[in-house]
Amino acid sequence: MMKFQSLAEIATLADQLPARDEAALAEAQAREDSLTKPPGSLGRLEELALFMAGWRGTARPEIGTAQALVFAGNHGVCAQGVNPYPQEVTAQMVANFEHGGAAINQLCRVNGADLKVIALDLDRPTADFTEAPAMSEAETLAAMNAGAAAVDPAADVLILGEMGIGNSTIAAALAAALFGATPADWVGPGTGSDDAGIRRKIAAIDKGLARHAGLDPMQVLAALGGREQAAICGAVLAARAQRTPVILDGFICTASAAPLYAADPRLLDHCLVGHASAEPGHRRLISALGKRAVLEFDMRLGEGSGAAVALGILRSALACHNGMATFAEAGVSDA
Amino acid sequence: MMKFQSLAEIATLADQLPARDEAALAEAQAREDSLTKPPGSLGRLEELALFMAGWRGTARPEIGTAQALVFAGNHGVCAQGVNPYPQEVTAQMVANFEHGGAAINQLCRVNGADLKVIALDLDRPTADFTEAPAMSEAETLAAMNAGAAAVDPAADVLILGEMGIGNSTIAAALAAALFGATPADWVGPGTGSDDAGIRRKIAAIDKGLARHAGLDPMQVLAALGGREQAAICGAVLAARAQRTPVILDGFICTASAAPLYAADPRLLDHCLVGHASAEPGHRRLISALGKRAVLEFDMRLGEGSGAAVALGILRSALACHNGMATFAEAGVSDA
Repeated sequence: MMKFQSLAEIATLADQLPARDEAALAEAQAREDSLTKPPGSLGRLEELALFMAGWRGTARPEIGTAQALVFAGNHGVCAQGVNPYPQEVTAQMVANFEHGGAAINQLCRVNGADLKVIALDLDRPTADFTEAPAMSEAETLAAMNAGAAAVDPAADVLILGEMGIGNSTIAAALAAALFGATPADWVGPGTGSDDAGIRRKIAAIDKGLARHAGLDPMQVLAALGGREQAAICGAVLAARAQRTPVILDGFICTASAAPLYAADPRLLDHCLVGHASAEPGHRRLISALGKRAVLEFDMRLGEGSGAAVALGILRSALACHNGMATFAEAGVSDA
Repeated sequence: MMKFQSLAEIATLADQLPARDEAALAEAQAREDSLTKPPGSLGRLEELALFMAGWRGTARPEIGTAQALVFAGNHGVCAQGVNPYPQEVTAQMVANFEHGGAAINQLCRVNGADLKVIALDLDRPTADFTEAPAMSEAETLAAMNAGAAAVDPAADVLILGEMGIGNSTIAAALAAALFGATPADWVGPGTGSDDAGIRRKIAAIDKGLARHAGLDPMQVLAALGGREQAAICGAVLAARAQRTPVILDGFICTASAAPLYAADPRLLDHCLVGHASAEPGHRRLISALGKRAVLEFDMRLGEGSGAAVALGILRSALACHNGMATFAEAGVSDA
């Protein structure tokens, strides 16, 4: 099991972690080209099948186990009035996940994912980043290790999601610190902030950026992030170690993994972005990561909801890739 | 069972066929707003759930039976060299469907649709529309009635697809005749035409439009369409009669249903477009119908493949709508 000892080591991991299997990818491409359809006519479904083949290291990858991990955390920056909901909603929603009543429960059931929800010290919010680093290095590493430990070694694909009142502000702060532009370019309504709420979000991020300048990417995670953000980073790395592709969710989940990209872009090579959120910063962020989202459904819920819907698309892609007859098998004339 | 006696009657059907159930829609909207999520945060998934509620006439619609119908036909216009594949491929692909080897077989299995393939007189292609009307009124009505008869009365949703060598030329001809613009605006590579092939497609359509000018929309279907296009129109209308929503597939399937829209736009109110195809005319056509596609995956295969993937999205939408807890049920604080 992966265990992180220091934040400084993270940037060095890309050289040690598995890379895409180019031989499996080439074999999968040859199979795609032999199937009873005009070459390339399944579009992105073909790309997704090839992505899975390269990362699983087999020309005909299957999804036996799909795991969904939802991490929850609370945030000191809520003291700045950045969210219209009370912070207790984080624990209430965790209970809703545990009782099966949330969107992610339904989406995991219908798309075939095993859901695990991990609440990270909800009664002990991180520090308010306008006043101090949100987390110490030890707290950050503990959350990363909790994320890594949660990954199922049997998972053929991993869906990541989050819940945490106030964490769209956390996400915008991380994005602004890692990729520049102004806080206003990254801030949106989140769960439903009005204009005054959005101004409070921007003001809080401005203060946080001024207080925590000149940090390297993993230090940015500690200073401005939260436990569920760190846990997502840990899970992304643990998945990579076992060649399990990851489907990131919306703006907050993608921003949570972004410190890894800023540390070394290769660390997110095994990650898809499941959907482009309606939260306006997400498109900018997806572009900064050089990715293209699988779906665009104007969703903005979090919880891993968009990633779980994208899992269904991945199943369609692999069903075609693995189940279709070749021209030779079917006796169909090739052009 | 719906039986069509004349093409002239089609334009009058919109007044007789069921309309959306506004009471069920309002009840479904009230339910959506009570679920444990920020209002509207499931984006298009909410729209799809409401669409289903309105057409099924119940606030909590479910998909018990999903039917996929793929109609196949052959086209005299292939004599003009409009397709790189030999016309025998239509029957070969029908056999592939029957043996379970095509993309649509895998996509129906993984997304839970019952597939039925209906080959329409493959050994008797329609007339070459550059020389004569493709079909007589009697032939058109026979194909429409075959399409209507194939619709399962128990279907909660109907997926439509097609197979027919040469039918991207048929689709472009229908679109140009119904919505104007030039044939070049509607023609694309289809299954893989090169530039010379595309020029042959445009030339054939130019001839067809000149020969069959001044017709009403259903006469356009007879003059320029094919049996699988007429069968799709029949199935769309039969589905409407029983309040079964329809998911249209790509360019050819959408163009097949377009004469109904041109006859009376309300006739396609119960239809979704499952995906925006890579075939360039499809976006223009979707826009002409006032629709927005569910998915955009650069697919261009036909067979109902994009519509079958969209079925999975519809299942996700209804799982959330029907299965989520309300704020009251879950004890979660509303904002």
